[in-house]
Amino acid sequence: MPNISERGREMPASPIRKLTPFADKAKLEGKKVYHLNIGQPDIETPQGMISAVKNIDFKVWAYTASEGTLSYRTKLASYYKKYNYNIEPEHILVTTGASEAIMISMMACLNDGDEVIIPEPFYANYNAFAYCSGVNIKPVLSHIDNGFALPPIGDFEKLITSKTRAILICNPNNPTGYLYAIEEMEALKQLVLKYDLYLFSDEAYREFCYDGRVFVSPMHLDGLDENVIIIDSVSKRYSACGARLGCIITKNKKVYSAALKFAQARLSAGMIEQIAGEAAVDTPDEYFEKVNSEYTHRRDVLVQGLNKINGVFCPNPGGAFYVVAQLPIDDADKFCQWMLESFEYDNHTVMMAPATGFYSTPGAGYNEVRIAYVLNTDDLKKAMICLDEALKIYPGRVLGTKEVVAATGSNS
Amino acid sequence: MPNISERGREMPASPIRKLTPFADKAKLEGKKVYHLNIGQPDIETPQGMISAVKNIDFKVWAYTASEGTLSYRTKLASYYKKYNYNIEPEHILVTTGASEAIMISMMACLNDGDEVIIPEPFYANYNAFAYCSGVNIKPVLSHIDNGFALPPIGDFEKLITSKTRAILICNPNNPTGYLYAIEEMEALKQLVLKYDLYLFSDEAYREFCYDGRVFVSPMHLDGLDENVIIIDSVSKRYSACGARLGCIITKNKKVYSAALKFAQARLSAGMIEQIAGEAAVDTPDEYFEKVNSEYTHRRDVLVQGLNKINGVFCPNPGGAFYVVAQLPIDDADKFCQWMLESFEYDNHTVMMAPATGFYSTPGAGYNEVRIAYVLNTDDLKKAMICLDEALKIYPGRVLGTKEVVAATGSNS
Repeated sequence: MPNISERGREMPASPIRKLTPFADKAKLEGKKVYHLNIGQPDIETPQGMISAVKNIDFKVWAYTASEGTLSYRTKLASYYKKYNYNIEPEHILVTTGASEAIMISMMACLNDGDEVIIPEPFYANYNAFAYCSGVNIKPVLSHIDNGFALPPIGDFEKLITSKTRAILICNPNNPTGYLYAIEEMEALKQLVLKYDLYLFSDEAYREFCYDGRVFVSPMHLDGLDENVIIIDSVSKRYSACGARLGCIITKNKKVYSAALKFAQARLSAGMIEQIAGEAAVDTPDEYFEKVNSEYTHRRDVLVQGLNKINGVFCPNPGGAFYVVAQLPIDDADKFCQWMLESFEYDNHTVMMAPATGFYSTPGAGYNEVRIAYVLNTDDLKKAMICLDEALKIYPGRVLGTKEVVAATGSNS
Repeated sequence: MPNISERGREMPASPIRKLTPFADKAKLEGKKVYHLNIGQPDIETPQGMISAVKNIDFKVWAYTASEGTLSYRTKLASYYKKYNYNIEPEHILVTTGASEAIMISMMACLNDGDEVIIPEPFYANYNAFAYCSGVNIKPVLSHIDNGFALPPIGDFEKLITSKTRAILICNPNNPTGYLYAIEEMEALKQLVLKYDLYLFSDEAYREFCYDGRVFVSPMHLDGLDENVIIIDSVSKRYSACGARLGCIITKNKKVYSAALKFAQARLSAGMIEQIAGEAAVDTPDEYFEKVNSEYTHRRDVLVQGLNKINGVFCPNPGGAFYVVAQLPIDDADKFCQWMLESFEYDNHTVMMAPATGFYSTPGAGYNEVRIAYVLNTDDLKKAMICLDEALKIYPGRVLGTKEVVAATGSNS
């Protein structure tokens, strides 16, 4: 039997999906599992997008242009104009989800062995895309104590070597929900210009900013045209994760041309998705207002619920639909698996993503989990009760941060 | 401005799509362009597949399982059973087109620097996938004189090194249309077992075999369970190229597990595509009979038309919907571009794919083009008239094979 490849062996498993077999088993045993592990919202896809699919008229389900149809790119450009992005259809390259957008961007901009600096915790699959493209991730640690704000620019600078080629941010952030402020974006701009780096900005959660906070893209900053690569997706914006439709936006013509060659190799993104994506741009503002109000409410319920649990700490994030919470546990991977395998409360349990997979520094995030607030508030409340009960009896329970503080009196 | 990557610079442009800007310009100038460059059939997608899309009922366009829905994989297994593949749903990993299937298979099975032997000419984008995954292609030359039959196994063996990990075939072949006979498949089996190699079999054109010839898959051969990776796609089978839906089939559990990790990183294939793909399995046999009869007719018209042109030689292939023809020209890249830029006959011209991009040996195929017979016979006839006229006046015309033979008297 031929061996599989080293990268096949060493490729990191998705922390979001790796516990799925345990969840499946729990369900077979009759448990109800609250899925807070994955960013698959229960929010309905806009009716206009669904209608576009149902009313589609075609005889041949054909390839489109590799860069995406002109019609879709033109419509997309109008969506971005509403956000004051000064871009045209020729700056947009349509991709099969943000996943492919990141992969192609890394391939087009970075060589094997080049380095990209990413504030951690970060979206776990960045590890996989970097691994596939031979790029090395240099993590710069952000901290739960200040809600995972952008680390000081000095921390980035310490990591810069002759191999550093890019900074990658996700804004609003997955997994932390942190929304970068204008000052943080300006600081990143100066860094990027000083060292002539690419700035990859994953903006899949752009629509989800709460408490009146303002979203700032590098596209809003002057002087970065050659440096910025925007990564986007319709998955979260329109609750259409299964559409696998995203894009790269860049005004750097060399990057665009190189990216197009990678796009040509896989021929095109989906035809129906692009038709639906075009219709989606006409989604009325009320849809987003309603969705954002729902997410704000869920976040409040979740964050309050978490912080009420003895030993748990969770910051209150400004965007996206995730939080990273610190639990009084020895090992998040063990705990999350234990919740599925060995725990039930009233025949319910909760699936969460261990935060370790969102860090690349070994050991970091060992007592943190990512929770996606993609269920309604009733279910979220029940899930929090479950979590509270689980933490009471989990064999690997340790003192929580607040408890340590109280026990040592170091809050004095 | 930061530089793009070396791989971004060196990534080969698609020979199928790279002349598109010239075709676009020709069309702007009012010329009608016959598109014989790309395997985008004009054949209608089965009604059942279109109805499945139009009648779809969903509220959330959601991710599916990373390996594909159980429902679709179960149905797909029944499709393969009709072809006497002894496989189950758990051997199928659903992908975003055959493109992704090849990329993931290479990543899971081969390391950076490993070698895969491929009979050339081969599907041009294999170059791109190999390039992206750091795999080196070792081409083994097949010849137009015998219709691009499998090269002697001795030619493969000469190329085997400690780095050789796989053989990749495309059957029926893109670009040559050659259908491998049982004896050729058996010879490959012995080779693969002798050197413990993977056998990647790209079977996107399985349904298209002509003149009563029989399709043979490595899945029909005993003793290869751990070696075989089937690459498949619905694109050509159901004239649904824009659906971007394919799969990997393997009974090698280690390969499957490794491939799944790569699949998890990109979350899932399209939801609607899998629903449509499930419906497509119920496509009645008459659909394929009608389509095959149409393609057989087109092939006959095309091959006869080509061989009638002074200096042109084209074998008569047994499958797929491509031919590679030898033309009396100095340089296929120049000629194909010239056809679009500088030629018109009755305001018509033809777009073809220069065969050079389908070889990895420099210089090979310099006087060959790939022609896809994806247009109706009337258009094919008109395209052949165009080509004939073009060859009469093309400034880089040279003596064709038959003319050289006649001129030197070496046919005696």
